[in-house]
Amino acid sequence: MKPDQKYEEYKILMGRIADLDFSNAVLGWDQQVYMPKNGAEGRGRQMATLSTLSHELFTSEKLENLLRSLSEDQSLDDKKRFNVQRTLKDVTRKKKYSEAFVSEMALTTSKAFGAWSEARVKRDFKIFEPLLSKIVELKRKEAEFLGYEEHPYNALVEDYEPGLRVAKIDAVFDQVKRELFPFTREVTARFKPDTAFLSKAYPKGRQWEFSKRIIEMMGYDFESGRADDAPHPFCTTFAPGDVRITIRSAENEFNMMLFAAIHEAGHALYELGLPQEEHYGLPLGGALSMAFHESQSRFWENSIGRSLSFWKGQYPALQKLFPENLSSVSLHDFYRGVNAVEPSFIRVEADELTYHAHIYIRYLIEKALMAREIEVKDVPAFWNERYQEYLGIRPSHDGEGCLQDVHWSYGSFGYFPTYSFGSFYAAQLHAAMRKDLPDFEGRVERGEFASILKWLREKVHVHGKRHSSDELLTKVTGEGLNVSHFMGYVREKYGALG
Amino acid sequence: MKPDQKYEEYKILMGRIADLDFSNAVLGWDQQVYMPKNGAEGRGRQMATLSTLSHELFTSEKLENLLRSLSEDQSLDDKKRFNVQRTLKDVTRKKKYSEAFVSEMALTTSKAFGAWSEARVKRDFKIFEPLLSKIVELKRKEAEFLGYEEHPYNALVEDYEPGLRVAKIDAVFDQVKRELFPFTREVTARFKPDTAFLSKAYPKGRQWEFSKRIIEMMGYDFESGRADDAPHPFCTTFAPGDVRITIRSAENEFNMMLFAAIHEAGHALYELGLPQEEHYGLPLGGALSMAFHESQSRFWENSIGRSLSFWKGQYPALQKLFPENLSSVSLHDFYRGVNAVEPSFIRVEADELTYHAHIYIRYLIEKALMAREIEVKDVPAFWNERYQEYLGIRPSHDGEGCLQDVHWSYGSFGYFPTYSFGSFYAAQLHAAMRKDLPDFEGRVERGEFASILKWLREKVHVHGKRHSSDELLTKVTGEGLNVSHFMGYVREKYGALG
Repeated sequence: MKPDQKYEEYKILMGRIADLDFSNAVLGWDQQVYMPKNGAEGRGRQMATLSTLSHELFTSEKLENLLRSLSEDQSLDDKKRFNVQRTLKDVTRKKKYSEAFVSEMALTTSKAFGAWSEARVKRDFKIFEPLLSKIVELKRKEAEFLGYEEHPYNALVEDYEPGLRVAKIDAVFDQVKRELFPFTREVTARFKPDTAFLSKAYPKGRQWEFSKRIIEMMGYDFESGRADDAPHPFCTTFAPGDVRITIRSAENEFNMMLFAAIHEAGHALYELGLPQEEHYGLPLGGALSMAFHESQSRFWENSIGRSLSFWKGQYPALQKLFPENLSSVSLHDFYRGVNAVEPSFIRVEADELTYHAHIYIRYLIEKALMAREIEVKDVPAFWNERYQEYLGIRPSHDGEGCLQDVHWSYGSFGYFPTYSFGSFYAAQLHAAMRKDLPDFEGRVERGEFASILKWLREKVHVHGKRHSSDELLTKVTGEGLNVSHFMGYVREKYGALG
Repeated sequence: MKPDQKYEEYKILMGRIADLDFSNAVLGWDQQVYMPKNGAEGRGRQMATLSTLSHELFTSEKLENLLRSLSEDQSLDDKKRFNVQRTLKDVTRKKKYSEAFVSEMALTTSKAFGAWSEARVKRDFKIFEPLLSKIVELKRKEAEFLGYEEHPYNALVEDYEPGLRVAKIDAVFDQVKRELFPFTREVTARFKPDTAFLSKAYPKGRQWEFSKRIIEMMGYDFESGRADDAPHPFCTTFAPGDVRITIRSAENEFNMMLFAAIHEAGHALYELGLPQEEHYGLPLGGALSMAFHESQSRFWENSIGRSLSFWKGQYPALQKLFPENLSSVSLHDFYRGVNAVEPSFIRVEADELTYHAHIYIRYLIEKALMAREIEVKDVPAFWNERYQEYLGIRPSHDGEGCLQDVHWSYGSFGYFPTYSFGSFYAAQLHAAMRKDLPDFEGRVERGEFASILKWLREKVHVHGKRHSSDELLTKVTGEGLNVSHFMGYVREKYGALG
């Protein structure tokens, strides 16, 4: 077989794997948005089968042999070589998972999800504790067989933000603790906007009319996607031309639908901007990392969607749509209201500033569990003390405390830091964009988002997984991650507020 | 490996195949109901991959070896032996398909669908002709390698109605020509109901309110299914507890939504009544045949949904829902209107009587093509002459003639007869049910459909593929297919009308 043929073989095999994974995404999406109750059992087994088949192909000898042979081929161009080497790295990692481990983890997490749901509703950590203990034990094992330097948590973070290490996370959060936390306390002490108007009645149909117009202005194309109602907002990719979002709404919470729609559309625009057609199922066609994904959603949600320039342009239309609620609310008061800052218990409802305390606390817990510095039974107390320490509030029960997030129930450890890193990347990209695009605020105000999306596509999206986060940030902004950009952004924004 | 273990292995493998096929059904459903335009290309390749993987497993040496070994095992119980033998028969048939043939057919039909759509819109058979010729050539080859006795068409019918042969279809249609066609002409000559009220404005929301209530009364459970809008009504199964239907509607055509909803719900009730949980992915968990499937949908649609007893019970509620259209239309006039008989060009809009002329014509064409008695270029003229002969009308263009049905474009030859056979089975089951269930008409009038569904479940659904159609009819009604039941039904019904 000639090298070109071998690369084609490799592409075909990876395409098949992607076909299985994208099919599974369709099944998962339907499960969340349309599946009738009694379809659950069948759907569970079908999704497991597609995962298994995908895993079998990905760890097959056939693929590994192709990759080993291709990785020694000097005639491949740079892009092909990258795809091959990165896939080989991923395959090597995946092969460290024994079948026994995978099935034990699957069995445990499938039970854990139900236990977590019940525990959360009943506000009783004890219901979840035995299964979470089992999961933590498995994750500790996983870190061991994957291998790591310095800290077992490093092995797990790799799945979500390749190359990120505890030392870096600690350094970043040291700065966050030193600069953001005191600043947040200062802001909450002086900035007390009126938010009552956000809880008036906003009929869902009109909320969607507005949200849809905004995400279309951002460049989200309903011929390459759609939006459906779901209990949780998410973005999911089925094909290069089919990237969907889900939305949720509450008539009495204006913030819920719009900002989630902008956030998810931000994820979707990244997926739609990836060179997925050229590199279907290959590393160059995939998103860099979870943190970079989050940078895209947070950029649109916060840097754009919660900015004064944006609302200068859009508020008149919103007022016209909801005159009964907003005709007596000034632009300035509206802008203050949607940027209110207040310590709260629930992460997903947190503002731009206090959000990072939520993340930091989860990170501390995950790291301590992996290092065996605490055990699962210690989590509730540890959690509550940290909330007292960093947010000044103490949960009255575990439902609004350590049971609020689903991640641990499906064995996801190492994911949380990417939420904060996504915000910090977003602020750094935002700063660079303001330098690159003259009259940036004017563009935002006039809703001229095409040039902004073009910038993101050319600077970020088009590269797929080609660079590490720090490499790409350096390429685009002239330096690796520097949290000072985020601090500059929040100081400027909240300095001008109240 | 012990026999029990081998049977378990076989079940696991068949379960995996079913998982792939059901997953593919989800993708196909989404393609029809929700997929955005630009998702088409990716979806096509994903569905092809799932089909290929399913086919690979079904024709794998592993499965065949298991089946060969199990088929010699005398210790298996009757049900298990049936599953094994039937699967072996199906595998043996599928293995006759060469990879080259399958991919040539897939390639041809994927082009043919587009050509057919374009030809239909442009009313130009020439656009479709070359690809249809290619398909017919491939189907002729298929009949040869599958093997047959007497007529090549027999090889193709086997996919849709196992055991059915041309000799039987001819005999049945001889009776249809002798009895139904003259009767139809007699009815159309004397029965001229007013149908104008069916074309008034029936807002979709209220149409669905009524349709939903009716199919729920039939026993369709929205916790095990759902209904979505689609360009064409269909029923699709994703899991034993997830069988969905699609509906379409037109504000000015009352007939469109309700009867299609009842029809599709009839299909769905059959699927939900199959022992799919016990025999997931196995022959005993599957529908007997396409014709038996159609017997279930047509039974509910026509024998129940277009009956006088049904409307005696339901018409008051319908009048109340649409007083603006129906307050001055009597029950009798309504009943006459929804049972109007008139020769027309479009099969899917045809009434209970003329419908079978549409089917007969397609059957004649398919049979003649397979026997090389005509060629594809002859189809339009052949079609138009037969419409003149059997329906007394001649299409003014091929769009309302030989281009109206999608089936040929995807290589489906041998399917059409099952539509008529389904109606004839339905009438025979209906006759038996009337004997078995005292006060049958009263039950229908009072909407007591539970006992009717129970009868169908116990007599038909529970058996899966256990019997051939004629065996099952004999078991349930005391005789094999006898078209006189259908003739008796239409004579009684239309004798009383006009």
